[in-house]
Amino acid sequence: MSKPLLFGEIPGINEGDIFESRNEIKNLGGHRNTQKGIDGNRHEGAAAIVLSGGYKDDVDQGLEILYTGSGGRNDKKVLIKDQTWDNNDNASLVSSMNLGKPIRVFRGAKHNSEFSPKIGYQYAGLYSIVEAFEDIGENGFKICRFKLIYSGTTRSKINSLFLFESQLGDNNFYNSKVPTRTETTILRIVRDSKIGNRVKQLYSNFCQVCNERIKVKNGYYAEGAHIRPLGIPHHGLDSLDNILCLCPNHHIMFDRGTISISPEFNIIGEINSPLTINSDHIINIENLHYHNKIHGF
Amino acid sequence: MSKPLLFGEIPGINEGDIFESRNEIKNLGGHRNTQKGIDGNRHEGAAAIVLSGGYKDDVDQGLEILYTGSGGRNDKKVLIKDQTWDNNDNASLVSSMNLGKPIRVFRGAKHNSEFSPKIGYQYAGLYSIVEAFEDIGENGFKICRFKLIYSGTTRSKINSLFLFESQLGDNNFYNSKVPTRTETTILRIVRDSKIGNRVKQLYSNFCQVCNERIKVKNGYYAEGAHIRPLGIPHHGLDSLDNILCLCPNHHIMFDRGTISISPEFNIIGEINSPLTINSDHIINIENLHYHNKIHGF
Repeated sequence: MSKPLLFGEIPGINEGDIFESRNEIKNLGGHRNTQKGIDGNRHEGAAAIVLSGGYKDDVDQGLEILYTGSGGRNDKKVLIKDQTWDNNDNASLVSSMNLGKPIRVFRGAKHNSEFSPKIGYQYAGLYSIVEAFEDIGENGFKICRFKLIYSGTTRSKINSLFLFESQLGDNNFYNSKVPTRTETTILRIVRDSKIGNRVKQLYSNFCQVCNERIKVKNGYYAEGAHIRPLGIPHHGLDSLDNILCLCPNHHIMFDRGTISISPEFNIIGEINSPLTINSDHIINIENLHYHNKIHGF
Repeated sequence: MSKPLLFGEIPGINEGDIFESRNEIKNLGGHRNTQKGIDGNRHEGAAAIVLSGGYKDDVDQGLEILYTGSGGRNDKKVLIKDQTWDNNDNASLVSSMNLGKPIRVFRGAKHNSEFSPKIGYQYAGLYSIVEAFEDIGENGFKICRFKLIYSGTTRSKINSLFLFESQLGDNNFYNSKVPTRTETTILRIVRDSKIGNRVKQLYSNFCQVCNERIKVKNGYYAEGAHIRPLGIPHHGLDSLDNILCLCPNHHIMFDRGTISISPEFNIIGEINSPLTINSDHIINIENLHYHNKIHGF
């Protein structure tokens, strides 16, 4: 376990690739352990999991997976006590959720799912942990459960029985399998980045506007807010001098342009107070000018 | 324009369908007007747009579209004054963003894009408005711009030159076209629903925990928080008695289980105060019990 913990895609491992053994995955850096299901730690998060055998109540719908955490079992994998959120493996999964980090998912042949490979192990791509909750498992003991959704860019057909058919033209078939999706509107997607996590570290998750932080399980939650937005047509950079550490409420107001930051680092618009700035955080003034321009300040 | 404004997918109009004329789209209820680009109003939002000709700076990348708002142009479509956010069409697009409503996008043959149909009009599917910002257009006048991302479930190949190839196995090709996506982690996806919007209306967007509301352009922002979560394994309902109106900060704390609601409607956990409840809002106590159970209260 002396190798560093790497998050995201690993060169040489492509979605859909089959591996003969966990040793092969380990040697490529996909998952650094050949026994444990979860590869991570409570501070950085979990970078990879292997689904193999798994908990009987787990559900694998391909693009959406329910996963049961670690602990509480004896040598025969029977639950003999409560699982805890403080368990290092479970805490690493919670950290991944809090930090918005992606997790590599591998399915083993013994994993009970229609998406499992027939032999060996298959890389299913990157997922995001979107829920952590508890449940009553065998013998009345508490179990820690996690919901993962696919968040890779490839969307190869290995995670979806329906997507591929829909690509071939039969839209109604796909839609009929996921009725709730078509009735649901998407409200808000917050994407974050490695650099965003560095900014949040710099401020210990305290919002630079209100100086509050959001308590979540095992820690605090904040968002990295890009000053000059990423993507077309703005082409802002994902760099330390272009990101603020904000709570979700002030992130929305900042992105929607009801607050902005003056070149003198005062909050302007609906809120008027000085912006909190860490002395190690150099903010690019040109980016502030850009944000002010696109929001009419 | 006497027909009601309908949001989301319309029966009889499938992604990829080609229409000879705007009249045909109008008769099917896809877009209720044969001249205007935007079909909507400032209160409910915009339900459909037609891209046809468009603004010269617009960018259509298929799954991501930049769209310029209405107003400020003379009969010859030359910009002769500032566009405004208060313009009814622009305000309708901002409302769609604030309310998280999907918008139907049609591309016309005259729309300058590699995704345009050769003749007539093509239904491109549902998109979400994720940004509203201003820019300097022709002759130095202000223009209102919007960024739309595809949020339909079909992902037919009409919006992506790359996705279809990737389905056929050449993953690296797709990834190489969208390098920023692979470096980005997804932090938080907030989905909302029609019922969620009714709950927000009931509270005028004031959070039931902190009694504050978030000021955004043309209005206020709140989120509909499901008490018993949707989807596997919870199978909560998208119903009025299962949704709270919360600000994003308290939505996160509620979903992550650092606050919950007692059967006596007191906030418990990290915050201890009574929950604000509108007398027209009947909350299902069983759902509160469920939320408490999965978060260890």
